[in-house]
Amino acid sequence: MRKTKYFLSTKKEKPSNTHSISHQLMIRSGMISQSSSGIYTWLPNGIKVLKKVIKIIHHEMKINNAIEINMPILQSSKLWIKSNRMKTYGKELFQIIDRNKNNLILSPTHEEIITQLVKKKINSYKSFPMILYQINTKFRDEIRPKSGILRSREFIMKDAYSFHTNKKCLNQTYKKIYQSYIKIFKKMNLKVKISKAQNGVIGGNISHEFYINTINFKKNINKIKEKKNKIEIGHIFQLNQVYSKIFNAYIYTNQKKKKNLEMGCYGIGVSRLIGAIIEKNHDQNGIVWPISIAPFQVSIIPINFFKNILVKKITEEIYFKLKKYMKVFLYDTNEQPGIMFSESDLIGFPYKIIISDNTIKKKCIELQNRKTYSKKNIKIKNILTILLKKIKSKKKYF
Amino acid sequence: MRKTKYFLSTKKEKPSNTHSISHQLMIRSGMISQSSSGIYTWLPNGIKVLKKVIKIIHHEMKINNAIEINMPILQSSKLWIKSNRMKTYGKELFQIIDRNKNNLILSPTHEEIITQLVKKKINSYKSFPMILYQINTKFRDEIRPKSGILRSREFIMKDAYSFHTNKKCLNQTYKKIYQSYIKIFKKMNLKVKISKAQNGVIGGNISHEFYINTINFKKNINKIKEKKNKIEIGHIFQLNQVYSKIFNAYIYTNQKKKKNLEMGCYGIGVSRLIGAIIEKNHDQNGIVWPISIAPFQVSIIPINFFKNILVKKITEEIYFKLKKYMKVFLYDTNEQPGIMFSESDLIGFPYKIIISDNTIKKKCIELQNRKTYSKKNIKIKNILTILLKKIKSKKKYF
Repeated sequence: MRKTKYFLSTKKEKPSNTHSISHQLMIRSGMISQSSSGIYTWLPNGIKVLKKVIKIIHHEMKINNAIEINMPILQSSKLWIKSNRMKTYGKELFQIIDRNKNNLILSPTHEEIITQLVKKKINSYKSFPMILYQINTKFRDEIRPKSGILRSREFIMKDAYSFHTNKKCLNQTYKKIYQSYIKIFKKMNLKVKISKAQNGVIGGNISHEFYINTINFKKNINKIKEKKNKIEIGHIFQLNQVYSKIFNAYIYTNQKKKKNLEMGCYGIGVSRLIGAIIEKNHDQNGIVWPISIAPFQVSIIPINFFKNILVKKITEEIYFKLKKYMKVFLYDTNEQPGIMFSESDLIGFPYKIIISDNTIKKKCIELQNRKTYSKKNIKIKNILTILLKKIKSKKKYF
Repeated sequence: MRKTKYFLSTKKEKPSNTHSISHQLMIRSGMISQSSSGIYTWLPNGIKVLKKVIKIIHHEMKINNAIEINMPILQSSKLWIKSNRMKTYGKELFQIIDRNKNNLILSPTHEEIITQLVKKKINSYKSFPMILYQINTKFRDEIRPKSGILRSREFIMKDAYSFHTNKKCLNQTYKKIYQSYIKIFKKMNLKVKISKAQNGVIGGNISHEFYINTINFKKNINKIKEKKNKIEIGHIFQLNQVYSKIFNAYIYTNQKKKKNLEMGCYGIGVSRLIGAIIEKNHDQNGIVWPISIAPFQVSIIPINFFKNILVKKITEEIYFKLKKYMKVFLYDTNEQPGIMFSESDLIGFPYKIIISDNTIKKKCIELQNRKTYSKKNIKIKNILTILLKKIKSKKKYF
């Protein structure tokens, strides 16, 4: 991608009213832009990361034979009255009255709809176990939205639901997805903590949450207070028969008796996960993207792109060669080297290629690693092979 | 995909209260399921088609250097009051009051937000022309939702917005996207009609709509009435300075004068498009998917899968071989041949492979074309090569 053809607006300064590092860096690096309180537009750098994260999640869900569907954002309130969650969710539930005076809600989760769907569509016990999932926009009317996408009112989630004829089978699937979650987060260079948790308003008995701890800065008059923050990025639940009883979803046993289905549900806060990754993958200069989810794997920074004909020629050749194999960001601009370096570090491209008269003379370019800042002169003819090797070695989980 | 591992529920009978053929076929073939009035869940067969359609659209948008973003579903009503569209959209706009008594709307379109975003983020005239787009869920509070996803209250749209420093440039982009639209619809085997249209509440002077005509059946006491229906699947607009004036989005000219940006917007009703494709690609037995967007390219129908060991063996071998190269649906079930044939025709797999004792003796299987119903015996060892050739020949636009 040429910078001149891209939509990118970065900031040197810390934006006001941002208390978490990920929020600051996402705004500064042109990933998101606030449109209302707790509501954000995803800008091109943000979308690219989001799509890579989503791809990894799809991949792992498919390994578990989970089947993708897409449930609606608008739900009839009747379903939520039936499950009594209209009350238990309380004010966090966005409510709407349509033109025909019907009550609707904006989905924060889909246990009601999916249980009804499975009841309506599946008749045979042979269909189970079945895991259905979606990656979709969800809503929560937070009283105090804060920290950017870490606590927003509109967010993206992966929610999976499993159905079983017995508890043992539910437990097996639960364990499989537990392991998948560790794998998913590891692919994004995120070591998560896991603990047994309360099931809360969602129901059921057993649940585990996946989270990280991070530091939150709070300015109080004259001193900055540090506060440990827990960021939950995933939560899995054994719901057992809570919803299958409410919505009457059952199978017939061998003895021709009705038996309610066992159910599990498995969430990942996809947009929040990106915030969590940044909390754990940054330094004082900006984001340090893991190769697997970087918006671009490498940036090319030519020095005197417009003034030095040879620099321009070599730059274009390298750009043309690399972009067939990886995502490359090209500074085809008139900017000062320092500006391009610090913007590259802020955005977090895992590698920088610096092309200048000095190194060209030696038929070299300079390759810099974002994480370690180590630099190396590399023969121009070897750059593709070397980069491919570096990128692939980090991609071992794919 | 093995049928026993899939989530599929098809219907032989015409569902009640469905007046359009696409609505009937989408429900019957297990693509969608209604959850409330005008609100649907996309089931696995539906999602697969939806994703292929979306992929084609992304591909064409990228050819036009359009850059992907994602704008929020919730918008502050203030923006819509400012553009006066709170009034002009009227009751079709879903409105919400949040817990802090702020007024929000559910997005039917994003001209306000994007104009504000471009004003906020882009300072240099060098950034233009710029095309930004998203594929996202949108909402319209239809007074009488009908015909399934052809007129639903929650739907998927591709909306692109272009920004320019002058009218000539806007006109060039407008023409380019006009041509892209023809290409997109052609890839899905849809010949569209195009006509000059009214700009309506969206504003501006020039606009074109892309549509098909179809037949709608209405039952009146004793006779069935045919009614020609127009289904709009795309609409492009030259908005000129309507929104850039309201939101004060401008550049400085060479003469250091402020000049408002010129703007275009370009919509495709993605979910509705799928309905339109079915209206134009079906016969009395079901959907006839174009290869480019079929949920699976081929179904394998073994006769006596559980009783004939050789049939089972050959079936598994062919399935294993083909699924590396294409999407294959395997009837690993105990169903009657007639049931599997008619379900295959209903769902619309472009090719059927029938594996029976009769043909196996001659080292053959039977290959049937969904569209022409032509059948041919084919040597088992040649099936992959022949299918790949057929599939690729239809994929020429990719």
